[in-house]
Amino acid sequence: MNLLCVGSIANDTIITPFHRKNNVLGGSATYCSLAGSLFCKTIIVGVVGSDFTRFDVFRRRNIDTSGIQIRKGKTFTWTGHYGFDLNTRQTLSLKLNVFKHFQPQLLPRHQQAKCVFLANIQPRLQLEVLKQIKHPKLIGLDTATEWINWARKDLLKVLKQADIFVINESEVREFSKEYNLLKAARKILSLMQPHHTVKRMDKRTNSFPALIIKQGEHGLLAFNRSHSYRDGLPIFNLPGYPLENVVDPTGAGDAFAGGLMGFLAETGDFSLPNLKRACTYATMIASFCVEDFGPKFLENLTLAKIRKRLRLFKKLTDFKI
Amino acid sequence: MNLLCVGSIANDTIITPFHRKNNVLGGSATYCSLAGSLFCKTIIVGVVGSDFTRFDVFRRRNIDTSGIQIRKGKTFTWTGHYGFDLNTRQTLSLKLNVFKHFQPQLLPRHQQAKCVFLANIQPRLQLEVLKQIKHPKLIGLDTATEWINWARKDLLKVLKQADIFVINESEVREFSKEYNLLKAARKILSLMQPHHTVKRMDKRTNSFPALIIKQGEHGLLAFNRSHSYRDGLPIFNLPGYPLENVVDPTGAGDAFAGGLMGFLAETGDFSLPNLKRACTYATMIASFCVEDFGPKFLENLTLAKIRKRLRLFKKLTDFKI
Repeated sequence: MNLLCVGSIANDTIITPFHRKNNVLGGSATYCSLAGSLFCKTIIVGVVGSDFTRFDVFRRRNIDTSGIQIRKGKTFTWTGHYGFDLNTRQTLSLKLNVFKHFQPQLLPRHQQAKCVFLANIQPRLQLEVLKQIKHPKLIGLDTATEWINWARKDLLKVLKQADIFVINESEVREFSKEYNLLKAARKILSLMQPHHTVKRMDKRTNSFPALIIKQGEHGLLAFNRSHSYRDGLPIFNLPGYPLENVVDPTGAGDAFAGGLMGFLAETGDFSLPNLKRACTYATMIASFCVEDFGPKFLENLTLAKIRKRLRLFKKLTDFKI
Repeated sequence: MNLLCVGSIANDTIITPFHRKNNVLGGSATYCSLAGSLFCKTIIVGVVGSDFTRFDVFRRRNIDTSGIQIRKGKTFTWTGHYGFDLNTRQTLSLKLNVFKHFQPQLLPRHQQAKCVFLANIQPRLQLEVLKQIKHPKLIGLDTATEWINWARKDLLKVLKQADIFVINESEVREFSKEYNLLKAARKILSLMQPHHTVKRMDKRTNSFPALIIKQGEHGLLAFNRSHSYRDGLPIFNLPGYPLENVVDPTGAGDAFAGGLMGFLAETGDFSLPNLKRACTYATMIASFCVEDFGPKFLENLTLAKIRKRLRLFKKLTDFKI
């Protein structure tokens, strides 16, 4: 299956304790589509200004850019500053520019997409995209603190239709108002009721709706309704890949989500073992992503490199009881 | 093999956002010996005041208490307060009492112990214990921030002789002055040169010296010299067991270490696969420990319960590539 990614496309300035980089290609849809394109034909949907010149990055990865609207004005810009631990970050400046009036309008052939990832943008825009998708099979969703606080109502509407919700640890706590992640997960999963999933629900082969909590360097915790309601436990607990040189964490979460969705779209296998496998590939992609500035590493990443790291990771995490 | 644990024995007051408990049996040697006794004959070495009445807890687990000195005066007391996340804690009061003049003097039969765990106490006392051990085979070490800062010289002397150093994430960073755990681990491992290990060194069957970084709810990262020097990666990365109800984290790290050492002492197998297995058992023990106040859960824990949880954990973390 193809994967359609909708989200932001940005011009970032990234400041870490060690470096400063201007004019870094950024945005949630950028990282997500670059990662997804490792596995399947990927469509990117978003908006850029007439100053945008980086189409080549997508085209080299065979990403369909015909869903990118070009508007008069400047591309969305973001400037972020990371603390010494490279985990905490502060937004120094954010200019919506052409993104301010973005109205996603899918081309007829894009409306036929089966797998859709709604990367981090306003929930209102995510809803508009969903309305245009004719026959969804798998809908993934990400969000951010600002939407949890300022657009909760719309976010709940999107969430209701999502098969996979990919969200980070602090956002889960904020959204659910529960500190404990198991309690938080149960609350959030009860809000997910995707109609298309319910219709084709076969518990043996379908592991959705699922919630994947990203824990940064500490990996992830995954939950789904049927399994976690049965024994009160998550379905998957995976540590992160330990790295010696973290350069820039920007986009790692989006790359994770794109890799996850791309793997699921390509395999078309929504079983629990395959969802776990998708999580491990996505974790490797995120680990590569942070080893260079912006999406630089993703641009030249190959499946062979991912599989090599995954074999090391398997050795590192494996144990016999 | 037997396991000898030396450390503190205390009378704790534990305050969490939800409860307050006075007169809780505590101390590093307490948690450590209770966990170790799940696997092998365990000896506890420490000091208590004439007010101490809790010998029954150790005896019910068949722990040899003849190495506990009873001194006129009060037992060491500690009062700690946990924040809402149950991760951060503050020491509200600490009274050394009889612990102030503690001089470990091992009974002749205790000097024959093969496996020794030097739980968190002053490095000077840990050194004195080591001097009295006649034929050590496996020496484990824990420490705390105060010794890293105030007794670094003595700590380095103990560390040089340790086969396993069990230490938490923030302490590793403090000790090594490196934020990145891989870099920190390499620095610390270069300081570990246990003579008895070097003599019997066989790289195929011996995975020491090893460093185990405890990451609380996020599990652990383990390193050893030969392996990590080869490929720059840790030897084992294990997430924590996800819990819904954390009651009191006191002693979880000591229980982890005691379980780890007890498992290794009982099996006598110092290979990498068995070190990994020991880490998984120890992780389960720590997860049980935090589910009740003080060492309450450890007092009645059984191997059957540990193995049951371990099977769930294996399912939860397992994946195919």
